[in-house]
Amino acid sequence: MRTHDHDEPAAAGLVDPARPEQAIEEAAAACSNWGRWGDDDALGTLNFLTDDKRAMGARLVRRGVSFSLAQPFDMNGPQTGWRRRTNPVHTMLDTGLDAARGAQGFPHGFGGADDVVRMPLQCSTQWDGLGHIFDHGRAWNGRDAADVVTSEGDRVTGIEKAADLIAGRAVLLDAGRALGRDGELPDGFAITPDHLETIIAAQGGTAGVGRGDIVLVRTGQLARARRDGWGGYAGGPAPGLSFTCARWLHRTEIAAIATDTWGFEVRPNEFDHAFQPLHQVVIPHIGLFVGEMWDLDALAADCAADGRYEFWLTAAPIPVTGAVGAPVNPIAVK
Amino acid sequence: MRTHDHDEPAAAGLVDPARPEQAIEEAAAACSNWGRWGDDDALGTLNFLTDDKRAMGARLVRRGVSFSLAQPFDMNGPQTGWRRRTNPVHTMLDTGLDAARGAQGFPHGFGGADDVVRMPLQCSTQWDGLGHIFDHGRAWNGRDAADVVTSEGDRVTGIEKAADLIAGRAVLLDAGRALGRDGELPDGFAITPDHLETIIAAQGGTAGVGRGDIVLVRTGQLARARRDGWGGYAGGPAPGLSFTCARWLHRTEIAAIATDTWGFEVRPNEFDHAFQPLHQVVIPHIGLFVGEMWDLDALAADCAADGRYEFWLTAAPIPVTGAVGAPVNPIAVK
Amino acid sequence: MRTHDHDEPAAAGLVDPARPEQAIEEAAAACSNWGRWGDDDALGTLNFLTDDKRAMGARLVRRGVSFSLAQPFDMNGPQTGWRRRTNPVHTMLDTGLDAARGAQGFPHGFGGADDVVRMPLQCSTQWDGLGHIFDHGRAWNGRDAADVVTSEGDRVTGIEKAADLIAGRAVLLDAGRALGRDGELPDGFAITPDHLETIIAAQGGTAGVGRGDIVLVRTGQLARARRDGWGGYAGGPAPGLSFTCARWLHRTEIAAIATDTWGFEVRPNEFDHAFQPLHQVVIPHIGLFVGEMWDLDALAADCAADGRYEFWLTAAPIPVTGAVGAPVNPIAVK
Amino acid sequence: MRTHDHDEPAAAGLVDPARPEQAIEEAAAACSNWGRWGDDDALGTLNFLTDDKRAMGARLVRRGVSFSLAQPFDMNGPQTGWRRRTNPVHTMLDTGLDAARGAQGFPHGFGGADDVVRMPLQCSTQWDGLGHIFDHGRAWNGRDAADVVTSEGDRVTGIEKAADLIAGRAVLLDAGRALGRDGELPDGFAITPDHLETIIAAQGGTAGVGRGDIVLVRTGQLARARRDGWGGYAGGPAPGLSFTCARWLHRTEIAAIATDTWGFEVRPNEFDHAFQPLHQVVIPHIGLFVGEMWDLDALAADCAADGRYEFWLTAAPIPVTGAVGAPVNPIAVK
Repeated sequence: MRTHDHDEPAAAGLVDPARPEQAIEEAAAACSNWGRWGDDDALGTLNFLTDDKRAMGARLVRRGVSFSLAQPFDMNGPQTGWRRRTNPVHTMLDTGLDAARGAQGFPHGFGGADDVVRMPLQCSTQWDGLGHIFDHGRAWNGRDAADVVTSEGDRVTGIEKAADLIAGRAVLLDAGRALGRDGELPDGFAITPDHLETIIAAQGGTAGVGRGDIVLVRTGQLARARRDGWGGYAGGPAPGLSFTCARWLHRTEIAAIATDTWGFEVRPNEFDHAFQPLHQVVIPHIGLFVGEMWDLDALAADCAADGRYEFWLTAAPIPVTGAVGAPVNPIAVK
Repeated sequence: MRTHDHDEPAAAGLVDPARPEQAIEEAAAACSNWGRWGDDDALGTLNFLTDDKRAMGARLVRRGVSFSLAQPFDMNGPQTGWRRRTNPVHTMLDTGLDAARGAQGFPHGFGGADDVVRMPLQCSTQWDGLGHIFDHGRAWNGRDAADVVTSEGDRVTGIEKAADLIAGRAVLLDAGRALGRDGELPDGFAITPDHLETIIAAQGGTAGVGRGDIVLVRTGQLARARRDGWGGYAGGPAPGLSFTCARWLHRTEIAAIATDTWGFEVRPNEFDHAFQPLHQVVIPHIGLFVGEMWDLDALAADCAADGRYEFWLTAAPIPVTGAVGAPVNPIAVK
Repeated sequence: MRTHDHDEPAAAGLVDPARPEQAIEEAAAACSNWGRWGDDDALGTLNFLTDDKRAMGARLVRRGVSFSLAQPFDMNGPQTGWRRRTNPVHTMLDTGLDAARGAQGFPHGFGGADDVVRMPLQCSTQWDGLGHIFDHGRAWNGRDAADVVTSEGDRVTGIEKAADLIAGRAVLLDAGRALGRDGELPDGFAITPDHLETIIAAQGGTAGVGRGDIVLVRTGQLARARRDGWGGYAGGPAPGLSFTCARWLHRTEIAAIATDTWGFEVRPNEFDHAFQPLHQVVIPHIGLFVGEMWDLDALAADCAADGRYEFWLTAAPIPVTGAVGAPVNPIAVK
Repeated sequence: MRTHDHDEPAAAGLVDPARPEQAIEEAAAACSNWGRWGDDDALGTLNFLTDDKRAMGARLVRRGVSFSLAQPFDMNGPQTGWRRRTNPVHTMLDTGLDAARGAQGFPHGFGGADDVVRMPLQCSTQWDGLGHIFDHGRAWNGRDAADVVTSEGDRVTGIEKAADLIAGRAVLLDAGRALGRDGELPDGFAITPDHLETIIAAQGGTAGVGRGDIVLVRTGQLARARRDGWGGYAGGPAPGLSFTCARWLHRTEIAAIATDTWGFEVRPNEFDHAFQPLHQVVIPHIGLFVGEMWDLDALAADCAADGRYEFWLTAAPIPVTGAVGAPVNPIAVK
């Protein structure tokens, strides 16, 4: 498996910091997959992840060792309330204390504990669904955002549509290790297509990226946050993909991408006045599934140790009907 | 792979309907795994699911076809409020309507939708964690339930401990098809160890069950509920495992079991006055992971069609810290 | 204090069951208060409830006996999930069990219990805010509903605007007692302006209704639901105000009205195909505050006993910022 | 109305900072109301607030001007997640955008907005219920805390028991104005019984405090937080009542007390190692209702302007069944 040629103009030369609208428009036009899978499509790039690809991916399992790529879901997470995004709140409905007291009303010594969680679907390790981001009121496949996502939820591209599909070959691109210091990229570091190709080449034969693959890009920011405190992890400065990666993400025909950061793309964004411009291209125009806040550190250490950067990944979102994203516990098996 | 001999006394003969306490006590004594994996163990029967088992399981993937075994997570679920168990409530924080209106305050045409869910962790497709059920105030491995699960959650055996492990070989035992009419067992049907062995034998070579396997038992009740309405699905009468399966579940050394019913065991329970007595043995004493409310119908149809009842399963719970159970989107790949 | 003349055409003659749109349009035109209190108004009929009115209301207190007019806020309420309206869910964050165990980490024997509630703001005893109902996309005072209530909430007429105002003279009109059997009106009973005037006259001098008053109309349905079970209390058939009351509600210049039913107006509604047409007139056009699901039974018994139907009422909504309604514990003092 | 003599030993002399346990034990013994209102009592000091007191309180209304003493209930509040106490989260179920779009499925131009709130009951303006605090595992009236407050809530002294009672005469003691600079006491300032008596005397004849009164103590901290940011408002340093006020709170036989701070008593607490020791005496032993996070600033300005410090107060908690506290929108009318 090999990656495509990379013939994009140099990233730095392409972005005029003063003109995000123009850049977004051009990238959207160049990368659009609208209509590619029919008018009714609700899967976007998951169409690339066929049964054949999945069968090949399963063959990558050798040792059987498994890694959870999820962060803990609890109140110690990074959210600070912006956009009413809070950390998950877990509360008990019944406890061992109640059971031990014998006050639960059950017969023959039976006791039970129950619990409940309340969480924004964007609060921790997650998939962005196709209804999560819009460009000038347009959702994936050219639909009117106002028709797609109402107060009742995403009626067309809800995350439940992807419930059974996200299992296949995945590749870790350890940008933190390849380009950073002590395995970490600094905040504001923009990973360009050239960087991605360099990493792929450096990581060797198991790191090729192509159609239907799930690409995991580790920046090292999560490792830093774990060590130094969350700080602005949930929305502040971060390493991440350059806006100039849009064409690469389109051309490689990957099924999905995920990072260990809050927002997948570099922060601050590369335009003078901007907010997540790469999202604005890749979700509504490419139809790309984007994963955020994944914990790639243990997996990365294993990949560095054995030199194998490809593996089997199952990353099945909880199918909350009509959700524009969902929590996920991604499991990589090598 | 073959199953163990089954030398239990006949199920029907064992259960004295008037004496649940005695039956539970005897089964607990016979099946206890307390101390088997050390005093600090928080994994129970997941200890059987080793990397080797996982590597063998991955080799079962042939066609690459994947099945989600999750029910939809929404307000159309079966919960009616008993024990404050409600259906998941999904609400929006931002919508396509807001985005299309241009009132979100983002630059350059960017728009977004966000959402939130509130759900009991036992409300839909789930794993019971080891802190979910107690026997006379004792939790898994003999711990005092009051020390394990407080209002802060399960401080010892929280579901996050199992976050990376539940991926391996799984076997579907289609009891509905083997023993029922039109693929469905009637409510109150108790599946005995003899039944399980009969199904295994009938399904052929791919259906053997042994150490480290994840066993999925389909009763057909979910298919019936989907057709006829939920009725008492969440706690009422149901087909399910007989109390007499306790020793079988212990002896086979399976890693986990899941069913398409609310409560895994037969309802009404087989004692005159009882509540989930099999839970009371298998969770605190065997340390068994129990999955409930799984949707096995599409998978079962595929198994019936190709005659292969074993497959690769990833069923990774959302790692809510300290949870006594968790929602899961199990993915079977054949 | 006396009530206005009532010169409306007979109610029954006015409503053409086949033409709700026309009736709503006519009533809206006849009753509109748009612009009455300026373009920026966010208070509607609460403008009638002046300090003077409030001072007069306080003088009605004689015995000092107080009545809570709130239903219990718990899972035993009437909600069934329609429009995602659930009953309040109350869960504990800490309990006396934790405290008694000494496991909370506090010094010197201190222990504490904490708790949390999750509830739709329309789930139980409540005020409808002015942003709760729209007519053809128009909110109170003629505003565009899409400008007023977004996913961020009601940015103009949020319930917090009424936080300090709803205290004043109130009058109970016991329609159940006056018109019903054993104090209860049957479901589907439409209370007309004539009925209201008849009740006022029958109840005597303390029951006059005028500018700035808060009118409580008891139908007896809650008493029935308490005795017989909720049934369709939350949205099904109910006694309530006739659509023909719109002009009366406008002309009397009352500050607010509340009933012991889910929806204030008669159900089924009086048109062939309709949904809460009286709401559609009184909230966006009159700017009237409507209270629902109040418990008027104990207060009504006291009024019947002492013959005094006027009293001091404080009904202050919890000021959830931007809410289109809010729970309230109304306190009547006689 | 006059206040009692104050014959307590000097506050400063009483508290040995190294011995909180002894001080709490002595104060509890001196102040206990256990058994005073019978074994079944669930009302504590609200027993002092009789109908007669209430009738007298209502006579204090002169101008009819009303004040809400509630803070806004929203995500801009002071909570930071400690003990899983978050700020209220308000989300929409339906909006004006949906209504204006005509996509709600209602007939004849009807549109509606609905919403939901999720909040800890201790998150904002609130009453502490009698089940909120325990002393060495004992709740109000000497009950075992483990019997009173389980995972199901407060089964004995739930806030619903107080639903109809908290309306009566209230007195504002403006400690910030009397003792502070620019109306504000500094954090850590302990208000002693002598201070309280000095303020009462200085405020004149309307400020006397006695049986059945509701006492509001303004420190000015909320004004400071509003100006300078929340900082540690929710649990950090604060002005508040000295531990030495316990006997005063008992002897005056007030019905309730509330402050404009998070925790009513001075923070840091006056012992070397302590947590809310005054709570530990007044709630379980005196049975006193304590209000926290009230906004007293506008009311205080009015009192300073007209020299009248007494008024009518209705402060009815939302009756969440079994709650150990509850949000409240207190309304003062002068």
